[in-house]
Amino acid sequence: MLSRNEVKYIQSLCHKKQRTEDGVFLAEGVKIADEILASDYTIKKIYATEGWYSRHKAMNVPVQVITEAELKRISQLQTPNEVLLVVQQKPASILSKQINGWVLVLDGIQDPGNLGTIIRIADWFGIQQIVCSNDTVEWYNPKVIQSSMGSFLRVKHWYTSLPTWLQQLNVPILGAVLNGKPVQQIQKYNNAVLVIGSEGKGIRPELFPYLTEPVTIVKKGGAESLNAAVASGILISHLTGM
Amino acid sequence: MLSRNEVKYIQSLCHKKQRTEDGVFLAEGVKIADEILASDYTIKKIYATEGWYSRHKAMNVPVQVITEAELKRISQLQTPNEVLLVVQQKPASILSKQINGWVLVLDGIQDPGNLGTIIRIADWFGIQQIVCSNDTVEWYNPKVIQSSMGSFLRVKHWYTSLPTWLQQLNVPILGAVLNGKPVQQIQKYNNAVLVIGSEGKGIRPELFPYLTEPVTIVKKGGAESLNAAVASGILISHLTGM
Repeated sequence: MLSRNEVKYIQSLCHKKQRTEDGVFLAEGVKIADEILASDYTIKKIYATEGWYSRHKAMNVPVQVITEAELKRISQLQTPNEVLLVVQQKPASILSKQINGWVLVLDGIQDPGNLGTIIRIADWFGIQQIVCSNDTVEWYNPKVIQSSMGSFLRVKHWYTSLPTWLQQLNVPILGAVLNGKPVQQIQKYNNAVLVIGSEGKGIRPELFPYLTEPVTIVKKGGAESLNAAVASGILISHLTGM
Repeated sequence: MLSRNEVKYIQSLCHKKQRTEDGVFLAEGVKIADEILASDYTIKKIYATEGWYSRHKAMNVPVQVITEAELKRISQLQTPNEVLLVVQQKPASILSKQINGWVLVLDGIQDPGNLGTIIRIADWFGIQQIVCSNDTVEWYNPKVIQSSMGSFLRVKHWYTSLPTWLQQLNVPILGAVLNGKPVQQIQKYNNAVLVIGSEGKGIRPELFPYLTEPVTIVKKGGAESLNAAVASGILISHLTGM
């Protein structure tokens, strides 16, 4: 039986303030639960239906068995899926100036679904590091976690002041802009940074001085813009080769 | 002043059944309104705030001026944006077996946001024809219209039985699958078809006999899949060249 205070507490974790204060985040669903259980993340508590619990008994994690109706009260999904986890956030590691491989940089991505999809794209192409501007949507937002589909577990992330960090780098810094070099004409780099701006505003002008190579997805039709996640996918696919 | 029946009628247009019966669809917002007004679509009625109307007076379209509160009652947006249009659907033209340029084929795409994003991608890359399986989400779904951002005006569409149509074609039929040829190794075609399946299920097995070239976005990391719109963007960008 879920106490009223417990319901209130879990609901409070929908807010960034509470998540940050307590250093935790929420994740939901059978698949993501299995991925988190298999990862090195620390799970603080699991709320699960009897059905889920019966399939996962031997665990070192506190599990509270709840009814479908109780799950519905604490779930943020339209169709709650057996299990909700309260997971400990990872402490931020130090952001290096040494770039190995490709690093994706996000400047002001606001939409959590977009960030989640971008994390999944990075994971697909083997990009293991994402650096976000301080005003990019929070990595542990429940919608980011859900739409990243477990990829958030495999990609490291940092939030930082981008101008300060970018100016210290010694690798090519590519930036997605409207009038750059066609992405097909960019040479293949082993170590480089790709900066993606938000759909509406693009990359902020104060970052322009740090871009060594502006890059563009050539437009042949009438659409005004591409979704930020779609643009990220196209650029990463061309730039990182096979 | 909006009558109760009018509110009810507009709300009923959120349902496919009513839209199809009446051959109309809903579109909302200042930008999309301007694009529809400049297109060859027939607008049945415009519901707009005084502010919008004062900027658009000379028109051959019936406009009803309503209050913000009334707009809120008929809008499906979280933040209603001055204007809502009831627009006439275009009658389906005959679907040809002659392929000129690239045609995108969608097999069972269910998510309206994904369809809208795919329409926008097609429009960006100059693909002007999309053929949908009969179980693909409806083109005139309000979420498709909104997420396509006006691109639905520039891309033609058909719904059909895909096996029947595909077997009549005389051009390469590429299909996005997990174990095909890397997209970077596919030759450039001027006239061809690209089939995209849904994120969860991929292309239906009954279409496999008609695919002349299975194509794949090579995976280097851990993600299980890519979002259908992201995959469409990556494939189209590689296949249609610059």
